[in-house]
Amino acid sequence: MTSLQDLHSAGTGPVVLSIDAMGGDRGPATVVAGIARSARVNPHLRFLLHGPEDELTRLVSKRKGLAERCEIRHAEGVVSMHDKPSQVMRQGKGTSMWSTLEAVRNGEATVAVSCGNTGALMALSMVRLRKLPGVNRPAIAVLWPSRNPHGFNVMLDVGADIRADAQDLLQYALMGVSYARNGLGLPSPRVGLLNVGTEEHKGRAELKEAFDLIHGQAKSANFEFVGFVEGGDIPGDICDVIVTDGFTGNVALKTGEGTAKLIGDLLREAFAFSPLSRLASVLAFTSLQRLKKRIDPRRVNGGVFLGLNGTVVKSHGAADATGVSAAVKLAFELAQSGFNERLAARVASTLEAQQDAPNTNNTNG
Amino acid sequence: MTSLQDLHSAGTGPVVLSIDAMGGDRGPATVVAGIARSARVNPHLRFLLHGPEDELTRLVSKRKGLAERCEIRHAEGVVSMHDKPSQVMRQGKGTSMWSTLEAVRNGEATVAVSCGNTGALMALSMVRLRKLPGVNRPAIAVLWPSRNPHGFNVMLDVGADIRADAQDLLQYALMGVSYARNGLGLPSPRVGLLNVGTEEHKGRAELKEAFDLIHGQAKSANFEFVGFVEGGDIPGDICDVIVTDGFTGNVALKTGEGTAKLIGDLLREAFAFSPLSRLASVLAFTSLQRLKKRIDPRRVNGGVFLGLNGTVVKSHGAADATGVSAAVKLAFELAQSGFNERLAARVASTLEAQQDAPNTNNTNG
Repeated sequence: MTSLQDLHSAGTGPVVLSIDAMGGDRGPATVVAGIARSARVNPHLRFLLHGPEDELTRLVSKRKGLAERCEIRHAEGVVSMHDKPSQVMRQGKGTSMWSTLEAVRNGEATVAVSCGNTGALMALSMVRLRKLPGVNRPAIAVLWPSRNPHGFNVMLDVGADIRADAQDLLQYALMGVSYARNGLGLPSPRVGLLNVGTEEHKGRAELKEAFDLIHGQAKSANFEFVGFVEGGDIPGDICDVIVTDGFTGNVALKTGEGTAKLIGDLLREAFAFSPLSRLASVLAFTSLQRLKKRIDPRRVNGGVFLGLNGTVVKSHGAADATGVSAAVKLAFELAQSGFNERLAARVASTLEAQQDAPNTNNTNG
Repeated sequence: MTSLQDLHSAGTGPVVLSIDAMGGDRGPATVVAGIARSARVNPHLRFLLHGPEDELTRLVSKRKGLAERCEIRHAEGVVSMHDKPSQVMRQGKGTSMWSTLEAVRNGEATVAVSCGNTGALMALSMVRLRKLPGVNRPAIAVLWPSRNPHGFNVMLDVGADIRADAQDLLQYALMGVSYARNGLGLPSPRVGLLNVGTEEHKGRAELKEAFDLIHGQAKSANFEFVGFVEGGDIPGDICDVIVTDGFTGNVALKTGEGTAKLIGDLLREAFAFSPLSRLASVLAFTSLQRLKKRIDPRRVNGGVFLGLNGTVVKSHGAADATGVSAAVKLAFELAQSGFNERLAARVASTLEAQQDAPNTNNTNG
């Protein structure tokens, strides 16, 4: 195996990702299958792979050409889906998850990818990578299939924290804008603030306050603020970035996924119903595959942790090789665009602007 | 036109519904078309129709056989979608919405149906019908297409109030159970409390407290409590009733609707893509119609206001005749089952049980 650190520090060409092989529902074989798939289509990818050395060596050696692009870092411990974040923070040293983050912390890799326990991964990321200056609560952002020409909207927070005050929501807006700019290539993203109505707002004082804060930053931070949006706008085309607290965002995300999955299953049933409908499904195969690809949650697999000194991509726990590969692709794109440095700069400059502004209360923590 | 009051007070046979002809996006012609459709298939239906007499008389006379089953109550004013609830509460007298609720208040009709402004309708309903004894916050419940054999789950609150404390969530559970029992025919409904995870619960103290309260009432109120559920379970089959606050519920409802609509549109595009896929759509027509019927939001049109002295069905503002007819069907079923009396009895008896229980804090308002 090659040492990858030299390649990485060269700054051009190869991108090194730090991959947690353990903790997903399907085990390390699926993770290795996923990175092998990505490696085949992208010659610039290199991996630091964390987990039990013997098992990983065996799995990697089965995939042609992978061993040369993959350095295995031995880690005995595994964070399970049932481990409590607080426990993992205290006793997580020696786990593959810890080791994965450590490689980003010490600059060996640009982005970390894990299929493991979300709560534990966020807790460990906060402790080991630490928050960016000016960020009070990091957030998890996802790409959501939408009616927009670029095919996706950014939504955050989908579950890093169940609470968010007005200042947090402003930071989510700024981080979401950075993500949309670097991840979706939108020069001036449109931001919407999720609420139960667009016109009038009863209660939830923090949303009204966040409305004013975000509105006040739109011009200087070069985004458009479309105001309050509703649940139906998350897959819509009136904005590119949807800002909400982690409780609401998490429920919305899982509701959308559940609804899409139900419709998909019912569609399959409908096509299996009669000989005629089975024939129809054959004729429509290509069109349906195109649709499936458009809305397949595995293709947009990967929540991104924003607001830390380093980028972490959280792949779905139940991700298969396609899902892992999609998360790796996302991690590669974010690494290559220098996303985290840009985001840090954006948050810092807005913080300054807020502090300089004569009419704004400085409520930064 | 016949006077319907005598028919109604007889208690058997005909069911009188109070219908707001105004305030929907498509105007009174659509409402009249909807009730005409319901009247054709259900001989037990009678209507009190509220709005401008001349216009309604003209519209009703165009529908064969409708005039005999329909009494028009003149009301000049219309509550628009942009009117503020607080305004309507003060100045709403003389509107068709007010008149519609008044017929339920004075016992002429069992259930009210309106396509109008949700906030205004809830505000007026609170003032005119008043809350049931023991209910602190009324809720809006919807039927949600699901994997359950009965095809739907009940979810509440989807937007009556953006806040709910633990005691409110308990009442939502009890009201949702009554609705599932009477509306879906489930003798012992399974209740889930919406959260961001099923195992462990970080923060949101009111959810933990509500967990204990609902758990404590399950046996005596004859339902099963499955504990915390996630957004993906709303269209799922692990529970029949999903309990949440009106902010989260409203976002989830609109996210689900928006997702279903996006997939439907993409599906149509997919089938229009090539001559082969167009042929496929013809062959699969019957199966796809069946699927469409299963998830068509118009077929489950109608949020039900629970916790008032009288039942109010809120039809979607953009409902077409099919949608209005679905809301009327729901109103009929609830009227016929004596739903509101049962719900009132359930809430009252649980209230007593809670007050009698030695170990429970009595926090009823």
